[in-house]
Amino acid sequence: VLHGLEPGIVIDEEKIAREMARRAPGKKLSTPRKEADRVRFLSGIYQGKTTGSPICGVIENTNTRSSDYQELARWMRPSHADYPAYVKYRGFSDPRGGGHFSGRLTAPLVLAGSLCEQAMSPYMDLSFGSHILKLGPYEEAPWQDIRRDVLSACAGSYIPALYPERIEEVIEEARSRGDSVGGKVETAVMGLPAGLGDPLFDSLESRLSHLLFSIPAVKGVSFGLGEAFAESYGSKVNDAYYMDGDRVRTRTNYNGGILGGISTGMPIVFQSVIKPTPSIATKQDSIDIIDQKDERKAVGGRHDPCILLRAIPVLEAAAKIALYDAFKEERGFHA
Amino acid sequence: VLHGLEPGIVIDEEKIAREMARRAPGKKLSTPRKEADRVRFLSGIYQGKTTGSPICGVIENTNTRSSDYQELARWMRPSHADYPAYVKYRGFSDPRGGGHFSGRLTAPLVLAGSLCEQAMSPYMDLSFGSHILKLGPYEEAPWQDIRRDVLSACAGSYIPALYPERIEEVIEEARSRGDSVGGKVETAVMGLPAGLGDPLFDSLESRLSHLLFSIPAVKGVSFGLGEAFAESYGSKVNDAYYMDGDRVRTRTNYNGGILGGISTGMPIVFQSVIKPTPSIATKQDSIDIIDQKDERKAVGGRHDPCILLRAIPVLEAAAKIALYDAFKEERGFHA
Amino acid sequence: VLHGLEPGIVIDEEKIAREMARRAPGKKLSTPRKEADRVRFLSGIYQGKTTGSPICGVIENTNTRSSDYQELARWMRPSHADYPAYVKYRGFSDPRGGGHFSGRLTAPLVLAGSLCEQAMSPYMDLSFGSHILKLGPYEEAPWQDIRRDVLSACAGSYIPALYPERIEEVIEEARSRGDSVGGKVETAVMGLPAGLGDPLFDSLESRLSHLLFSIPAVKGVSFGLGEAFAESYGSKVNDAYYMDGDRVRTRTNYNGGILGGISTGMPIVFQSVIKPTPSIATKQDSIDIIDQKDERKAVGGRHDPCILLRAIPVLEAAAKIALYDAFKEERGFHA
Amino acid sequence: VLHGLEPGIVIDEEKIAREMARRAPGKKLSTPRKEADRVRFLSGIYQGKTTGSPICGVIENTNTRSSDYQELARWMRPSHADYPAYVKYRGFSDPRGGGHFSGRLTAPLVLAGSLCEQAMSPYMDLSFGSHILKLGPYEEAPWQDIRRDVLSACAGSYIPALYPERIEEVIEEARSRGDSVGGKVETAVMGLPAGLGDPLFDSLESRLSHLLFSIPAVKGVSFGLGEAFAESYGSKVNDAYYMDGDRVRTRTNYNGGILGGISTGMPIVFQSVIKPTPSIATKQDSIDIIDQKDERKAVGGRHDPCILLRAIPVLEAAAKIALYDAFKEERGFHA
Repeated sequence: VLHGLEPGIVIDEEKIAREMARRAPGKKLSTPRKEADRVRFLSGIYQGKTTGSPICGVIENTNTRSSDYQELARWMRPSHADYPAYVKYRGFSDPRGGGHFSGRLTAPLVLAGSLCEQAMSPYMDLSFGSHILKLGPYEEAPWQDIRRDVLSACAGSYIPALYPERIEEVIEEARSRGDSVGGKVETAVMGLPAGLGDPLFDSLESRLSHLLFSIPAVKGVSFGLGEAFAESYGSKVNDAYYMDGDRVRTRTNYNGGILGGISTGMPIVFQSVIKPTPSIATKQDSIDIIDQKDERKAVGGRHDPCILLRAIPVLEAAAKIALYDAFKEERGFHA
Repeated sequence: VLHGLEPGIVIDEEKIAREMARRAPGKKLSTPRKEADRVRFLSGIYQGKTTGSPICGVIENTNTRSSDYQELARWMRPSHADYPAYVKYRGFSDPRGGGHFSGRLTAPLVLAGSLCEQAMSPYMDLSFGSHILKLGPYEEAPWQDIRRDVLSACAGSYIPALYPERIEEVIEEARSRGDSVGGKVETAVMGLPAGLGDPLFDSLESRLSHLLFSIPAVKGVSFGLGEAFAESYGSKVNDAYYMDGDRVRTRTNYNGGILGGISTGMPIVFQSVIKPTPSIATKQDSIDIIDQKDERKAVGGRHDPCILLRAIPVLEAAAKIALYDAFKEERGFHA
Repeated sequence: VLHGLEPGIVIDEEKIAREMARRAPGKKLSTPRKEADRVRFLSGIYQGKTTGSPICGVIENTNTRSSDYQELARWMRPSHADYPAYVKYRGFSDPRGGGHFSGRLTAPLVLAGSLCEQAMSPYMDLSFGSHILKLGPYEEAPWQDIRRDVLSACAGSYIPALYPERIEEVIEEARSRGDSVGGKVETAVMGLPAGLGDPLFDSLESRLSHLLFSIPAVKGVSFGLGEAFAESYGSKVNDAYYMDGDRVRTRTNYNGGILGGISTGMPIVFQSVIKPTPSIATKQDSIDIIDQKDERKAVGGRHDPCILLRAIPVLEAAAKIALYDAFKEERGFHA
Repeated sequence: VLHGLEPGIVIDEEKIAREMARRAPGKKLSTPRKEADRVRFLSGIYQGKTTGSPICGVIENTNTRSSDYQELARWMRPSHADYPAYVKYRGFSDPRGGGHFSGRLTAPLVLAGSLCEQAMSPYMDLSFGSHILKLGPYEEAPWQDIRRDVLSACAGSYIPALYPERIEEVIEEARSRGDSVGGKVETAVMGLPAGLGDPLFDSLESRLSHLLFSIPAVKGVSFGLGEAFAESYGSKVNDAYYMDGDRVRTRTNYNGGILGGISTGMPIVFQSVIKPTPSIATKQDSIDIIDQKDERKAVGGRHDPCILLRAIPVLEAAAKIALYDAFKEERGFHA
């Protein structure tokens, strides 16, 4: 359910379906579990346009195999939320489909992100795109000067990296050992005007990170130069303003398009660290929570050796939602 | 103003004053601008105890020298929020004391954090502490096995690092060149029980990062193993549950005490990247926003070569507030 | 979607169905439009108990006849929201089923109210009930001393009034003339402990009225003595505290169980004024918004001559939700 | 503290002072306790204009005589919040100045209301005014056709009623007996455009009543025809739309300018029931909460025989805040 979308926005359901497909499992490098991820709108859209009422979209999950998850009730999978959830929910969780913690719950995020992007499109010409910075031993350089055509190419690519075949090798190697692998993604947004966001409590960084850390497996978020700020000097990484005709720009964009929590008009740039999927095929030590004793087992079900590829559209969707939120706060219900 | 603190909590004003002093400028390595940072409570505390009403504390700023900030209205300091704020606030900002974006606004955060910590203290034995991971060329190893006595020692130290004299050298060297330097801090919290937080939209990571990114200069936040997850394999970094008597623990704590957005009962561990202060003494290129032309100048006023030291109690305060928030959601107004 | 229900609460689906049936149209005195109002839970309930995750319930509407609503797009029904909605939503509203403004949207309120009531039931022995104070020319006295058995009898009655046959006559008379009639309902809640709610901005009165005024047709809300306070003297209507054994009670309950926005432990009592349904069978003056000209017409479709009877379970549901909200704030996720 | 006021709004401090004076005690018919109510702005206003940052205004209370309130800790004043607050705050309340429940806390509401009104003034020509509908035995007719000049006259009058001398007599008579008296106020707002507010959960009625019920002593809120709806037929009280040139209006305004929770463009009209001040001079029965025994006493301190007159600017302020809130949601930070 998504509230507060301006009325009269033309919704492109094809575009939504494409975004949903990017996230969906069942591709070559991913889990064979095939989810349909078809969206059915119950309200808020009429004759292809938003009505201004809350949009309720239902994503039918056609392929839940509860038996895969049957034993989860007792055996606490290592690095999964099974145990803290057991404490919080006192053992009453619904084990079907991974419940509250499943990566499946990212599908509605992608849907909402796509709607938010379309709601902003009459007002600004936004481009979103990501590339892989790290993936196990793989590493490539952060973007320096971001270009629209590069962003578009990345957005259309399943493995947005300079050497996709190397990425495939890393993932296949992990899969062959029944292992999983983590990584790091850099995402950029072009076209956002200056002046959106807030200092202090609702900085753009706060809004973006809040949503990004809602995505399972995200364990780090940084902006602009990110980690490299820690070893930098002000004289080297300050972004100097200059006049580009009558437009204010900065010569560099080390701050990733955000200063004092507010957009500067330069591209928004952030990095997300994705931990390796905790579900691996090999036997692992853990506990049976009912009997309160140690027990060594392998996690059942079928899982991704690397969720990073499927996470990319979710990371972009989180950015779309957070930016739309800041946009609406600035411009109101009728932008 | 802080809402919703349980009534009857004994408030230790000495402890608050100590925390405030850690953040205050005027120490050897920091800016000579001397702020008193005395707290006067207008409501919510009576006879040394909370009343349950909102606590209103006023921090009087005895040393504002507006003249330092006079020219800010026109010249957009590089890497400062001057320009995006000019767009957002349409030139109506109050230039005295840096307005909305000043590091001074972190004093109320420290105050609120200290109150939140004291509000939790009857229910759990919490320890907070931080150490410096990086500072320009300086680097030290992340904590492996966190101990209470180490945390306490760090909390009492102005330069919580293995080689504080090396830190002093790095900062002095930057100051001598009129430069500033960034860094990275690791913070840990011990004593938080399992089961606090939420999956999805209000994960502990979301709550913590939201507040941490409200602190000016924070440009990265990561949890547990943090950045290193990007090059890791699941088989190596999964945290295995085991029974420690009747208590559930994990053998490692790569996830920094949070799984699925919920606390596991292990120490909460996070890293914050702090960018170098953008205010440096050397001349820099920028623009005059009124005349819309380029202008090269030096930033006036006196500023820290490294705000990281003073940021540490603010980072810890943000953690105290975020954890108290999750605690209250779980236990209600009367824990 | 209802968030934050404590895990492990046994959900009685029969009880929910009974509440839903009270609101559903299709009864003798009401509209012949027959809605099934069956609830299907998509998440949050597992093996008859809450899991602690958000509860998503879908109420399938089996009998929407969009043709009834076809012409609404242009002709602004008198005293309906058609015109302000046209302005707010810029003509993009979905006319099917009355959209955002339909009384049908009260069905989820009843569902949520029933879930909230069941969530509080392990902690307190609550009774909810209402009776009709006014309905056109009909009038009966407010409750003086509220008793549990009277509340229960009212909750089980379709026309909770001393002279239900007189009520039926008033409604039938209105229907026969193609007219509608307004009324006033008094609702009471017994069993709520003292100390819930807040002074100032989230007083129990604020919370209750906020939800009650979300119900279409509610145009007045008052507490305790209500309207009669306007002609009263303090010496006559002050509620005197006294000790009833070791329990604090008040001799009278003119304040309807709320003082300073907080529950006193006495029954919560409030009145709701319901305006006559604006949809009447006779021809009325109004405008065609597209052609911007006056046009006299009759409202199509089938409508209630008196929605007050069906509104009663909705009013009670609003109270259940508001009180649960205050209860959770006090006691947390795990009461 | 008031957040989110658009930058650049010219603030008229004289106008604020006049509004504050209307609420302040110390006038002929009111309590002799003299409060200065001077506002000092700590932030958010610079050179007479809003900066867009949160506005922090401190209202210094120069005349608190705590001794008046000393005994309140034990003796529960009849119809006061003393007892429910004792339960909620567990006896830790601050007895000075009535704490959280004092009518004094309405001064910030008046301040905030005045700021909100001024923030809307560049965009619409609003008029606010109220008159007394009832006061003990006094009664006058509700407004039929509201005119700007009448509203203005009421806003400038301390006793906005047709027969102010009769009002004075009623109040004096109550005072002479050491008694207090309740009443009912009708408030109108002209100039609000159509399309503000929301259906369902944040209807204009919900927003207005939420704030109105935050004012101590308000026990009833109704809109338009209000109470009289309960005995009305749809055929008589439906508001017919018509074209007034190119503007849509309704012939009558029984719905008080709100349909489906959204403004219609007609005047907003609401009524507030004010209970008699519970603090009366005569001896009353109540309890000593520490000794848990009955005790008959008189309430000390000096109090109003009728707070209704001073409540009027507070009711109007609540309306200003609620409408500004809806306005901002529609138009954003930069209207």
